Amino acid sequence: MSVIAIVGAGMMGSALSFPLRENGHEVRLVGTHLDREIISSGRKTGRHPKFDRDFPAGMKYFQIEELDEALAGAELMVSGVSSFGVDWLAETVLPRIRVPVLSVTKGLSLGEEGNLADFPSGYAARFPGLCFNAVGGPCTSYELVAGDQTVVTFCGPDPEALAWLKGLFATPSYHIRLSADVRGTEAAVALKNGYALGIALSVGLCRRQFKNETLHFNSQAALFEQGLKEMAALLRLMGAGEDCLFTGAGDLYVTVYGGRTRKLGILLGEGDTFAQAMAKLDGVTLESVAITGRVAEAVRKWAEKGICSLRDFPLLLHVDGILSEGRKADIPWEDFVRA
Amino acid sequence: MSVIAIVGAGMMGSALSFPLRENGHEVRLVGTHLDREIISSGRKTGRHPKFDRDFPAGMKYFQIEELDEALAGAELMVSGVSSFGVDWLAETVLPRIRVPVLSVTKGLSLGEEGNLADFPSGYAARFPGLCFNAVGGPCTSYELVAGDQTVVTFCGPDPEALAWLKGLFATPSYHIRLSADVRGTEAAVALKNGYALGIALSVGLCRRQFKNETLHFNSQAALFEQGLKEMAALLRLMGAGEDCLFTGAGDLYVTVYGGRTRKLGILLGEGDTFAQAMAKLDGVTLESVAITGRVAEAVRKWAEKGICSLRDFPLLLHVDGILSEGRKADIPWEDFVRA
Repeated sequence: MSVIAIVGAGMMGSALSFPLRENGHEVRLVGTHLDREIISSGRKTGRHPKFDRDFPAGMKYFQIEELDEALAGAELMVSGVSSFGVDWLAETVLPRIRVPVLSVTKGLSLGEEGNLADFPSGYAARFPGLCFNAVGGPCTSYELVAGDQTVVTFCGPDPEALAWLKGLFATPSYHIRLSADVRGTEAAVALKNGYALGIALSVGLCRRQFKNETLHFNSQAALFEQGLKEMAALLRLMGAGEDCLFTGAGDLYVTVYGGRTRKLGILLGEGDTFAQAMAKLDGVTLESVAITGRVAEAVRKWAEKGICSLRDFPLLLHVDGILSEGRKADIPWEDFVRA
Repeated sequence: MSVIAIVGAGMMGSALSFPLRENGHEVRLVGTHLDREIISSGRKTGRHPKFDRDFPAGMKYFQIEELDEALAGAELMVSGVSSFGVDWLAETVLPRIRVPVLSVTKGLSLGEEGNLADFPSGYAARFPGLCFNAVGGPCTSYELVAGDQTVVTFCGPDPEALAWLKGLFATPSYHIRLSADVRGTEAAVALKNGYALGIALSVGLCRRQFKNETLHFNSQAALFEQGLKEMAALLRLMGAGEDCLFTGAGDLYVTVYGGRTRKLGILLGEGDTFAQAMAKLDGVTLESVAITGRVAEAVRKWAEKGICSLRDFPLLLHVDGILSEGRKADIPWEDFVRA
């Protein structure tokens, strides 16, 4: 039995308590300042407000003011914050720990020179004494909570630490592949958010064109093909290994089907501007929007330097045009097939 | 205006008459001996029995006995036969023509030494004077008929012939990428049928486990990831180029959602043996079954020769065990994550 502190009680951070408790570990779930109601709900009702089943028995809940108590004696810190919380984590939590970290955060940071960096490497540069690992791959939190068969990738720099992490988390339904390719895995699962938004556009476009709910998959599949092609090119430019593309493809597949990115894509496809769609979605912050802007910016800088051609990224740049310039969705199909 | 004969009036062969007629070409649709009712239906009602809208106006229909009449003056022969009809085509149709061929057939042939060959190359070896091209990529026939946005790949040995074909078929909703990689494109879109069956297993398995119709995508996505990884390894072993993997991925995406392969996979996932499932499906012949057996056989021969390891193809071999040995579906999840 090990003691694990999960900091960040969003859906994915919270969901990881299920395999951990199934394996009998002590789980301390710590809410950030944004998670106050989630922690209260856990204490009062034993349930996360967004899950349709109770937390496992025996969970321990902590508000952010109780962070030190939660971290005391913990052997692993799981970071459940979103990409919007990485600086907060680095300032508030990481200086207080000496144990390995496993991060569920999806995203990339953009340097001034146009270099895209994964968060674990960014953390490691600031906290060289800590061992940073991350989870990637196709896993929706509510299906993890429901016990669906799930295959994820844990990536990190130290094979022994990875094997230990796998031992903590693996269950008969939560299967864990290990990878030394932190940069590639993290890049692939971050990029997929932007491309999932691109694919979801076609769902909305088909609703608008055909006025029916009949399944329209040709256009989704064409965007999947184009998205994967662009992801592969981006991963190559970032120096990623080969296998992470498959992880990214699986993650892209699952992301098209769930959550707010899909909703946003459908609204944009139906004809909303980004501003109109965000008003309907109540201004929620989305990883897909953040990553698209950053990667498009990076690609433009790389193209200026002659490292790549903008012609290789028509889907990325189309989605970015919708998000950052208020354009309407109008998929540039012929740009996908141009020689 | 060109004259095009389509031989084989199955769904995909017939669907290609829509973009051709949209572009004003003369389309002569020839049924094989299996398509007699389809041709009669076309003549009588102007509709393919499996489509929910009429054929374009001005189509010309031919029974197989009228083949010579249909071929007279045709500038292109489109082969709409399935993989079960390739020998018939080579014996009955190809000796009579001198014009280029465009094939929609999906499949691979297996040589005695375990070599997998694409059909266009097989045809070309027998008929060296003819120019064989093929269509691959994500396109369901009923969505092509409905005018959904669709992106396909035309592959062939001669860039000029490919450009001419693109000119014949391309419409504002039917977008055509050109590729010189016949082997890779044909292999990718053939392999996807077997892996689509593998992914569909999880739909049935989730129905059995959860007794609900809630969406379960983690396991589908895990199988998509594994399937794509195995496809990439197979394509590499077959000497394919890089881009065909994306075409195969898009085609895999669309194939999971439609048709008989999906139905078979769901029945197998729900617990049927292959024999039980096929009885329910009325003994229909499936490309997915044929290709899985052939590729599994090839992989076993390659493994004997030390060219590959069976450990790299757990999903393929699991599906083959279900189809050829009567085993029950029981996804070998841990084989996917083993180092």
